[in-house]
Amino acid sequence: MKTEPQPPWIHAAPPPGSWRSLFKWGAPGEFKHPNPRLFRLMKRAFAMGDEDFRAPSRTGEAPVDLALPCRLGSGDLATLRTLLGEGGVATDTFTRIAAASGKTMLDLLRLREGLAEHLPDAVLYPRNRHEVARIVELCARRGIAVTARGGGSSVTRGLECPRGGVSLDLARHMHKVVAFSEADQTVTVEAGMYGPELEKLLNAAPELFGASRPFTCGHFPQSFEFSTVGGWAVTRGAGQNSTYYGKIEDLVLAQECVTPAGVLRTGVHPAAATGPDLDQLLLGSEGVLGVVTEITLRIFRHLPGNRLRFGYMFPDWPRACRAAREILQGEAGFPSVFRLSDPEETDVALKLYGVDGPAADALLGLRGLRPGKRCLLLGSSDGERGYARNVRRNVARVARRHGALPITGLVTRAWEHGRFRDPYLREDLQDFGILTDTLECSVTWDSLERVHREVRAFCKARPGTLCMTHMSHGYPQGANLYFIFITRMDAKADYLAYQAGILDAIRAQGAALSHHHGIGRMTAPWIEGQLGPAHMDLLRALKRHCDPGGIMNPGGTLGLDLPEDQRR
Amino acid sequence: MKTEPQPPWIHAAPPPGSWRSLFKWGAPGEFKHPNPRLFRLMKRAFAMGDEDFRAPSRTGEAPVDLALPCRLGSGDLATLRTLLGEGGVATDTFTRIAAASGKTMLDLLRLREGLAEHLPDAVLYPRNRHEVARIVELCARRGIAVTARGGGSSVTRGLECPRGGVSLDLARHMHKVVAFSEADQTVTVEAGMYGPELEKLLNAAPELFGASRPFTCGHFPQSFEFSTVGGWAVTRGAGQNSTYYGKIEDLVLAQECVTPAGVLRTGVHPAAATGPDLDQLLLGSEGVLGVVTEITLRIFRHLPGNRLRFGYMFPDWPRACRAAREILQGEAGFPSVFRLSDPEETDVALKLYGVDGPAADALLGLRGLRPGKRCLLLGSSDGERGYARNVRRNVARVARRHGALPITGLVTRAWEHGRFRDPYLREDLQDFGILTDTLECSVTWDSLERVHREVRAFCKARPGTLCMTHMSHGYPQGANLYFIFITRMDAKADYLAYQAGILDAIRAQGAALSHHHGIGRMTAPWIEGQLGPAHMDLLRALKRHCDPGGIMNPGGTLGLDLPEDQRR
Repeated sequence: MKTEPQPPWIHAAPPPGSWRSLFKWGAPGEFKHPNPRLFRLMKRAFAMGDEDFRAPSRTGEAPVDLALPCRLGSGDLATLRTLLGEGGVATDTFTRIAAASGKTMLDLLRLREGLAEHLPDAVLYPRNRHEVARIVELCARRGIAVTARGGGSSVTRGLECPRGGVSLDLARHMHKVVAFSEADQTVTVEAGMYGPELEKLLNAAPELFGASRPFTCGHFPQSFEFSTVGGWAVTRGAGQNSTYYGKIEDLVLAQECVTPAGVLRTGVHPAAATGPDLDQLLLGSEGVLGVVTEITLRIFRHLPGNRLRFGYMFPDWPRACRAAREILQGEAGFPSVFRLSDPEETDVALKLYGVDGPAADALLGLRGLRPGKRCLLLGSSDGERGYARNVRRNVARVARRHGALPITGLVTRAWEHGRFRDPYLREDLQDFGILTDTLECSVTWDSLERVHREVRAFCKARPGTLCMTHMSHGYPQGANLYFIFITRMDAKADYLAYQAGILDAIRAQGAALSHHHGIGRMTAPWIEGQLGPAHMDLLRALKRHCDPGGIMNPGGTLGLDLPEDQRR
Repeated sequence: MKTEPQPPWIHAAPPPGSWRSLFKWGAPGEFKHPNPRLFRLMKRAFAMGDEDFRAPSRTGEAPVDLALPCRLGSGDLATLRTLLGEGGVATDTFTRIAAASGKTMLDLLRLREGLAEHLPDAVLYPRNRHEVARIVELCARRGIAVTARGGGSSVTRGLECPRGGVSLDLARHMHKVVAFSEADQTVTVEAGMYGPELEKLLNAAPELFGASRPFTCGHFPQSFEFSTVGGWAVTRGAGQNSTYYGKIEDLVLAQECVTPAGVLRTGVHPAAATGPDLDQLLLGSEGVLGVVTEITLRIFRHLPGNRLRFGYMFPDWPRACRAAREILQGEAGFPSVFRLSDPEETDVALKLYGVDGPAADALLGLRGLRPGKRCLLLGSSDGERGYARNVRRNVARVARRHGALPITGLVTRAWEHGRFRDPYLREDLQDFGILTDTLECSVTWDSLERVHREVRAFCKARPGTLCMTHMSHGYPQGANLYFIFITRMDAKADYLAYQAGILDAIRAQGAALSHHHGIGRMTAPWIEGQLGPAHMDLLRALKRHCDPGGIMNPGGTLGLDLPEDQRR
């Protein structure tokens, strides 16, 4: 492919203090620019010409020069400063906007417009759970809203503070190891620990804890580098290897949660018949019951040498889905990464990996693998050597039986290599008026193809829209569906209407509104319609018990305090 | 071994209407008598002679000739009869005593004494969930206590009705299949379905549902034949194969629960990030929130031909425990049955299987496997063929590395053969003043040996007591411990004091009070001490929301409405 001139992608860290520094994904000096193939694809898909890519716009490089008043009383501020030290309380506008911003597309659109909404009045940096407890106590007494924040990678408007108050930054100080047990294969950490730090210390367990072997956390969400253990837990997150290791609700063994009604601490037993399981109440509670301060995780032996990769191309989506189901129901063990792309995503992926063009199409076509039909399955197996082998053998057997062509594990290696980098693309695209966002849901096998068809039908009804879908987490009873759309769009209202249409379609088909992003404020208007009023009333009763003053992450999260006229 | 004269074990179905018919385990015409070896062992252990086994006593063969008044008003009874039909309401004393009796040792002791306590005023036989809803509605309005009952095999005083009211027998009519999905590998059944019926219909899925293969429920508690799906769920039960298939809380995908505050219905998605998981609140709720009427279970392919059995003898308990941990943490897949006996249980088992005596001891001794030290591990692996093989291979590798002698899978076969029959022994023993009961708990690996030592120390401090312990469910983070004691004892007070001592010891060592029996009223006095007041207050808030009038299974269950002076 001959390379055409590429757009002037911004390749400079955002100026400190700028709007861009608030919305840019990841590390300031890291980038992933669309490659020439993606660039060409976008021009064709969105009917854009080189002239549309002359100059980036609304790049947010200007400094944030707002000065929004802090509405906390000076008495409260003084109390907080006494408790946390001078450096433990920030009230400057920039810090407060940063605290209220996640990586929700709405955040990006607002920040590019220079719009600051729903700020906390102060950002607090507690050093330990005792300080969190004293903050919550004070705020409960004074009716001050409390929002906890981990890595800030929420894509569900989970971090906004529509009632002001304080935003607790748990990531600055609260990232210590509390306990490590090789015998029990558990680690207890403070909630603000980032993914890479956790994984690094588990990998180094022999040196750090005198363990006889290295361990792994097994949890690698797309946001891994910029999200915390606490964030994983309260949103019920999943990682890219969850089909083997389990979602975070399978990994969390015990928690401590500071609520206005007191400190809840759950037991560390691997299973028990001592009444309802409160861990599963805190998991997914998204800060509305209290602040989760400590988490005990199940950990796993780190056996990277045993990993086996695989890749298959299926002739069509129905056959690929049947094979996926068969693999996950076959009782042969579970793959670790297990990612099946629908035809549109497959064709885009082939383009991005440079495996498209007439020659490749002809070759694949000989095997009945045609563009617009064929589906890519990539993945890997982990665990003990014999286990990993058996899983891969079963995948191979089932894939062959469903007409798939083995294409080696190289494609999985390529995907692994770039797997944390895709979110960096969003800034480049948006600099030129192109918006990419994702929505995901959870489905039973029985409904999978229908949900895929109907949600996709809505997405594609918008002219000039790429809509790529994959299943990235599978179970014997169903899977998730992850929709990625890319379209030319920059108006907030346009975006919100489109997103609402997708969520309407997801709910109308009976899928669960989220498999691992959580609900936050973004999906909240739809939640009562899915869960039903009896379920929601029970959650509200729980909320009233833990947080009688309604101060914990208030303003719509999980739909608990959403006015009726805002429910869809 | 030459056989001595055996005691006159009762080998006749209890007379209908007798006390014995209320407390006898299982089918009226089924028995398992102690074999001559166990008989000899008991005589030696309890210093009893043949003369102590001349005649059974307190056998309860007399008819129940009490007539205890029903305190329900005639208006309420008439309403219930209109709703359920004449046959849907029973008020005779015998039926009411039966409804209030489970298989808790205290029940057996009371019934042998002719003591009827805590009866419901009426037993109801609802035909479907709508009738349950109307019963709960009526009872909520009229302040009538409601206790739900499945198979009646509770060993935690879960079925008593200390506040009278109505006992709902769900097993008589509510055992229908609501839905079956081969695609999703799920079955939805009414809560009153017994284990064997469920398993039979899943095994016959091709004939009954036109499925392409047979399925299994994977859940086989000791009480399998006499317990219901609803009972499994509300007590958080485990089955003998749970190390592979999971406990009931892993198997239940969705539920319907009729509460005084309305009907809760949870979603059928295999995983979701839509807030707290209410299924895990209902699982273990033991009837205090509402009546669970329908349950959707994950089911599994039925592959009995793939089952592989194994048996090993370890030189001592610490090495056996280390091996068990290594097997479960090895990421090589999970065994299905996985049962490790401590030295005392091992020696008793060898006697019962006839593998004791000087010759066997000498042979085992040559391998360093001495009485009072050696530990028996038996088990099996299930799943796809390669998976089952890999699990067994891993067990073999680890066992060898920890000094175990392979003793083939024949011992597992023998155990499988008798596995549902041991509870029948209780009547024979009690007929001669010998009491056998079990208590179980959940432990982390780190605490396992300490809990075993301390609980055992308490049990053995009573002279002439056999105390056999095994681990029957294992996890990477820990296991359960199951204590079986046999001793000469027939006074209720003596029994209660002894049991309390065991529970004190379990709690003092930080173990969870139950791994799969549940709490009921029996363990309730200890529960707040384990879970802590914040946890209990949250459960009470939940209870108040679902059951504001406090009518659902009231009187101590789960410790929710236990007066402070009854908490240990």
